[in-house]
Amino acid sequence: MSNASSSSPEPLDAAGFEALARGSVPLAETLGLKVDRFDHDGAVVRLPWSATALRPGGSVSGPAMMTLADIALWGAILARIGHEPLCVTTDLTFHFLAKPRHADVLAEARLLRLGRTLAIAEVRLMSEGSDQPVAHAVGTYAIPPRPRDDGAPA
Amino acid sequence: MSNASSSSPEPLDAAGFEALARGSVPLAETLGLKVDRFDHDGAVVRLPWSATALRPGGSVSGPAMMTLADIALWGAILARIGHEPLCVTTDLTFHFLAKPRHADVLAEARLLRLGRTLAIAEVRLMSEGSDQPVAHAVGTYAIPPRPRDDGAPA
Amino acid sequence: MSNASSSSPEPLDAAGFEALARGSVPLAETLGLKVDRFDHDGAVVRLPWSATALRPGGSVSGPAMMTLADIALWGAILARIGHEPLCVTTDLTFHFLAKPRHADVLAEARLLRLGRTLAIAEVRLMSEGSDQPVAHAVGTYAIPPRPRDDGAPA
Amino acid sequence: MSNASSSSPEPLDAAGFEALARGSVPLAETLGLKVDRFDHDGAVVRLPWSATALRPGGSVSGPAMMTLADIALWGAILARIGHEPLCVTTDLTFHFLAKPRHADVLAEARLLRLGRTLAIAEVRLMSEGSDQPVAHAVGTYAIPPRPRDDGAPA
Repeated sequence: MSNASSSSPEPLDAAGFEALARGSVPLAETLGLKVDRFDHDGAVVRLPWSATALRPGGSVSGPAMMTLADIALWGAILARIGHEPLCVTTDLTFHFLAKPRHADVLAEARLLRLGRTLAIAEVRLMSEGSDQPVAHAVGTYAIPPRPRDDGAPA
Repeated sequence: MSNASSSSPEPLDAAGFEALARGSVPLAETLGLKVDRFDHDGAVVRLPWSATALRPGGSVSGPAMMTLADIALWGAILARIGHEPLCVTTDLTFHFLAKPRHADVLAEARLLRLGRTLAIAEVRLMSEGSDQPVAHAVGTYAIPPRPRDDGAPA
Repeated sequence: MSNASSSSPEPLDAAGFEALARGSVPLAETLGLKVDRFDHDGAVVRLPWSATALRPGGSVSGPAMMTLADIALWGAILARIGHEPLCVTTDLTFHFLAKPRHADVLAEARLLRLGRTLAIAEVRLMSEGSDQPVAHAVGTYAIPPRPRDDGAPA
Repeated sequence: MSNASSSSPEPLDAAGFEALARGSVPLAETLGLKVDRFDHDGAVVRLPWSATALRPGGSVSGPAMMTLADIALWGAILARIGHEPLCVTTDLTFHFLAKPRHADVLAEARLLRLGRTLAIAEVRLMSEGSDQPVAHAVGTYAIPPRPRDDGAPA
């Protein structure tokens, strides 16, 4: 994911990342994603319970959960490296574990590894009020080389 | 993904699957997904070039491509088994390969395996007018047991 | 993975699972995998530091780590369901995070979900003496229908 | 995967890659992997039918197929970029599709994308004499920066 407005990393807080995510990814705006936490330990992003995220029968759709997960993973990385417009997703793997409850879905993401050119993070999605995961994802994000890089492999 | 309105598989065509997908997954409706092909050999689903799918800088967002891929994979399976409301995604793996062009994105999905209780399919996403893939995904879908099943493993 | 010698689940302990794994998967025997823990909370399997697992330069090879991870995930599931010969891997996703140290590699696996027909588990691999993960994997295993099953979807 | 004996890419042919793979990855040697094809269009690697790859009941074990797939994917990349010791696997996703026959297993790998710092490839595994895939995998490999690189993102 990227945002074309900046040429160098800059610090972000939860409100700044929420604005960046909703400005960069229209589906994040459509779904009304909110950022509950954004710090060195990771990011927590919230999918409010709403018609847009649903499918008939009242469950949360897979694409809505995937959008939520991707934003949370991206947040866990930008919370460490700052606003990096050229940080892009290279792979994402989802496992859907259980039907979400009738509640907001919370995505808790944390880094597994931060290298010079690749960051890998995982995220758990849970219905608010439950500690049973409804989905799990892990993803890799490419970080563009920076001036301070010495060219060593990731 | 599921739709709660039916209790047994029924035949579908491209128009029927498009209506099912857009009725079942609100983000598919938001993105205006269209079904170009839906037959025994697989499914082709189209993401029209539009502001909703974009991110600043004019590329197609990852979540829009993931929604497209999931619908196409689901289509490749329902084209074989009919409308099965309880067919749900269990895992999905995406690799993002290249920045899409300024064009519609086409997702061509085909089955890798159709078992009794699991179906596995893959999909390639390409910008219209190009044959270079912009993304690749593979996913597993659980198919509920049916009356004719004899209980043998998938 | 399966073992064809049994027709119904039976209880296992760490020694029993180690014997089952090494008897069922020749590469597990080749690598000398050991089971450190095997209980309701998951499984810990050890890859001893040895020439068989190495590649030139002294790191642990990817295939050795994948074998270790698969056995640990399988263990986390059998620790709950007992010896089920027809429990087979359906998907596995690995992320390689860092170069292992010159030490045994420990794989700690735990269930993400145990359904009637599918079990999903994750595993972290760490060099002994370090708490930085060197690899992460998540996998799905199909569990064959059992006499007590009522046919409900997984 | 890497081999520490070289400091710059050098051309390889099928025999050279087979020697490199078996010298670099002991499990590839244990399994007796052979390289049937290695050219610009990809790589085909063969797992001979043998006791080492089996599990009781006579099927090919998952770890043997994963080792085969990883070597074939690596081959598809090195066939393009030459012998690059620091080309390492970053992620691998497997789907197991069907029980292999009593025959050699062939892995046909081809590139999905070759970027400056990342290569993504897919592989299909088939029992010799059958065109039904028994497994599918897709993986990402990190390619270290080279002298001719200009630092642009992958």
